[in-house]
Amino acid sequence: MAENGPLKVALLGAGVVGSQVARVLLAEGDTLESRVGRRLELVGIGVRREGIERAGIDSSLFTTDSMGLVTRGDIDVVIEVIGGIEPARSLVLAAMRSGASVITANKALLAQDMAKLSATANDNEVDLYYEAAVAGAIPIIRPLRESLVGDEIRAVMGIVNGTTNYILDKMTTASLSFEEALQQAQDLGFAEADPTADVEGHDAAAKAAILAGLAFHTDVRQSDVFCEGITSVTADDIAAADAMGCVVKLLAITKLTNDDEPRVIVKVHPTMVPKTHPLASVSGAFNAIFVDSRDAGQLMFLGAGAGGAPTASAVMGDVVTAARNRLRGSAAHVQTGYMKREVAPIGDATARYYISFDVEDRPGVLAACATVFARHNVSLQTVQQSYLEGLERRDGFAARLGVMTHEASETDLAGVLAELAEASFVGTGVNYMRVEGS
Amino acid sequence: MAENGPLKVALLGAGVVGSQVARVLLAEGDTLESRVGRRLELVGIGVRREGIERAGIDSSLFTTDSMGLVTRGDIDVVIEVIGGIEPARSLVLAAMRSGASVITANKALLAQDMAKLSATANDNEVDLYYEAAVAGAIPIIRPLRESLVGDEIRAVMGIVNGTTNYILDKMTTASLSFEEALQQAQDLGFAEADPTADVEGHDAAAKAAILAGLAFHTDVRQSDVFCEGITSVTADDIAAADAMGCVVKLLAITKLTNDDEPRVIVKVHPTMVPKTHPLASVSGAFNAIFVDSRDAGQLMFLGAGAGGAPTASAVMGDVVTAARNRLRGSAAHVQTGYMKREVAPIGDATARYYISFDVEDRPGVLAACATVFARHNVSLQTVQQSYLEGLERRDGFAARLGVMTHEASETDLAGVLAELAEASFVGTGVNYMRVEGS
Ligand SMILES: NC(=O)c1ccc[n+]([C@@H]2O[C@H](COP(=O)([O-])OP(=O)(O)OC[C@H]3O[C@@H](n4cnc5c(N)ncnc54)[C@H](OP(=O)(O)O)[C@@H]3O)[C@@H](O)[C@H]2O)c1
Ligand SMILES: NC(=O)c1ccc[n+]([C@@H]2O[C@H](COP(=O)([O-])OP(=O)(O)OC[C@H]3O[C@@H](n4cnc5c(N)ncnc54)[C@H](OP(=O)(O)O)[C@@H]3O)[C@@H](O)[C@H]2O)c1
Repeated sequence: MAENGPLKVALLGAGVVGSQVARVLLAEGDTLESRVGRRLELVGIGVRREGIERAGIDSSLFTTDSMGLVTRGDIDVVIEVIGGIEPARSLVLAAMRSGASVITANKALLAQDMAKLSATANDNEVDLYYEAAVAGAIPIIRPLRESLVGDEIRAVMGIVNGTTNYILDKMTTASLSFEEALQQAQDLGFAEADPTADVEGHDAAAKAAILAGLAFHTDVRQSDVFCEGITSVTADDIAAADAMGCVVKLLAITKLTNDDEPRVIVKVHPTMVPKTHPLASVSGAFNAIFVDSRDAGQLMFLGAGAGGAPTASAVMGDVVTAARNRLRGSAAHVQTGYMKREVAPIGDATARYYISFDVEDRPGVLAACATVFARHNVSLQTVQQSYLEGLERRDGFAARLGVMTHEASETDLAGVLAELAEASFVGTGVNYMRVEGS
Repeated sequence: MAENGPLKVALLGAGVVGSQVARVLLAEGDTLESRVGRRLELVGIGVRREGIERAGIDSSLFTTDSMGLVTRGDIDVVIEVIGGIEPARSLVLAAMRSGASVITANKALLAQDMAKLSATANDNEVDLYYEAAVAGAIPIIRPLRESLVGDEIRAVMGIVNGTTNYILDKMTTASLSFEEALQQAQDLGFAEADPTADVEGHDAAAKAAILAGLAFHTDVRQSDVFCEGITSVTADDIAAADAMGCVVKLLAITKLTNDDEPRVIVKVHPTMVPKTHPLASVSGAFNAIFVDSRDAGQLMFLGAGAGGAPTASAVMGDVVTAARNRLRGSAAHVQTGYMKREVAPIGDATARYYISFDVEDRPGVLAACATVFARHNVSLQTVQQSYLEGLERRDGFAARLGVMTHEASETDLAGVLAELAEASFVGTGVNYMRVEGS
């Protein structure tokens, strides 16, 4: 940057988030200047489509040559809010190599290429900040990178997708079906026309990878994340959870195995959470991240996980911080995956499970069921038996068992499920859900 | 620091917090080294009493010459967990002037001398971090200093004292009196033998000053904070709150007035909070900070607000961050009170109020009451009248009014209260409580 001249900011993307970032940069110039100690000048905005009318922004700022913008050599901070892998990846790498600090909200890119991006930031002594990439406005990246870095994190569990939390909340509180709740979310603009990335858990999986990498100082990619969405969650599941004093949430979960060399468990799935757990009361489209650590104990961070303005708030916090660093001729430490931990296969992950299935109502059946669980080292916490009557009664299976297990591995769970499916005294349609939080 | 040699850390204080910080520094050396990129060496611990047996720590580390320790010239990071104004103040100033970065958990000192401490850090280009000073392990200082610094904060409301939250919680959920709940808190070690600083709100007031200064970029001292404790909260207040769908919390609150040049409102008092508000469900000795801002919207941070290990977690996050900065030859931006906002007198603060008092049961009384409120520009949201019978009935005052007002200033409230106290149709013992959060 020029002595005493403004810091030059380039913005890539002017969509939901980018337009809000531009608003703040253009409308709050004086405030930002006093916070940073130097003027921030928005010198250009990279977009895909030319000649579009964009409300309130001088059209001369726009360019379709994003690469030219970020490599012109005098840019201090590049904000990437395009999304997706390419051209975002090439643009942020080129920006850092040209000496610019990078702020990005791009979870997909970070969850694929964190190691490369961090190394490039460190090699070029520039900042790489991405507070907006997980849980929108909620400060969680900086707390993990800095506030908790002297502690030992044991687990992170997050509601990191507002759409699915909205849907599950409506299924719970308004007894809607999945389809009805999804439709309502779409009508209200919470869910996209193509809701796949949300409801199949892919969006949450990208965030889970980022959280796991930060929490455990290792490289985790979205492809490492076990991922199950909410499309097959039924009204019965919600009712069963309620009967067990739980609610169903789509959680991004990361923790370590108990091995001598602990491996990373990282997964996204519908989860039964006790109603007494802080995450249980996170309603609507809100996001929340729960962290359990050795010294700090249990922490929770709650707020708006998406939307243009909230996401812009997180982006602008990073911009001001990077700009301040720049004035001091420095850049913050960029976390690296120095621990080189392995990601455990899902079979080695442990959880408690709630399993329900129909059984014949005759002496010995309960004992036979218990034997199946015992054979696979799954011990039972509670067993509830209810009798099926009239229409509910299926093919001679007169009772329904609801079993809550103690902590067990997914491999052992799979063994139980396979054997129950074969057992003559068990009806079809064995249902299960993972249970987390105590 | 020496080229490639360890970073030298001096610890001042080895009490509840200091002993936990020492434990982490001594037991987690390898982990901290990989996080920082350099060994952290604990070179000395300043204490007051000589020759005490201190579990697990080499006695040669201790010194009663804290000033000699922090000014010896080769210290990279000084951790101050002595508490109080002197000698802590002289020690941290001397440490910074000797080129050391300072980490402190000392809310009392920060709430008295923030401006001086920040200026000294900036002048000497060292870090001044104090995450542990407010709400223990909960990351709130860093989110305010960095994550939200590109946003415009509208209000911060915090449960920042675990002892008083525990007492109020017990009064609410177990119907204990203030005295019984305090006794229980003392028996469980939550409350000190002399609970004054907690129950009178002084501890919360120091934290309110720090939060207000950070949120509004200005200098706020504890002496600027309006402060009312919980000693006069009664079972009746708790019951009245419950009847209005609220709970009573001791909140540290800061927001701005609506003036052209907004002034800072900063106060601590027992507060009725709607049960639907996120702060309402913060139970036991937990702390939580609620932030409302222009772009991020509503955020909440929840966790353990005190205790040796949680506070040490916050301290150690600051230590690692300061050490990393040091390796890069830099220090983070230290917030200054550049906005030079005034603190508004409490009379100019606004809130909603719940006011209850006995009245004569005869035609015209309700109208007369309404006139009193109207004369002072206090408009009414709801009025509930209940009839007093038998024993409850006092000196001819046969009905009790419960009034919820709209937002009004404390000056106008005081006018209402004074006039009600004089009115012949109103009984003695007019009760009121401030209401915040919607
Ligand atoms: N939306 C949220 O609530 C939210 C929350 C957290 C994080 N994020 C992340 O923020 C990023 C942006 O999301 P968004 O919702 O703002 O997306 P969006 O509304 O789809 O906007 C994308 C922007 O990028 C531009 N763009 C697309 N391809 C480009 C190219 N090849 N070269 C230059 N510009 C290109 C588009 O230009 P045109 O305008 O010309 O089409 C558009 O302005 C994503 O990484 C997303 O995951 C979003
Ligand atoms: N306790 C918490 O949960 C908590 C939470 C958040 C923040 N904090 C803050 O952390 C700080 C420390 O609190 P604490 O609870 O750890 O206090 P503490 O248990 O009373 O310990 C104070 C320590 O300071 C030492 N000390 C006292 N006067 C000294 C002097 N003149 N010179 C050198 N050392 C001196 C004492 O030495 P001796 O051991 O020789 O007596 C003792 O080791 C305070 O600022 C407090 O507000 C505490």
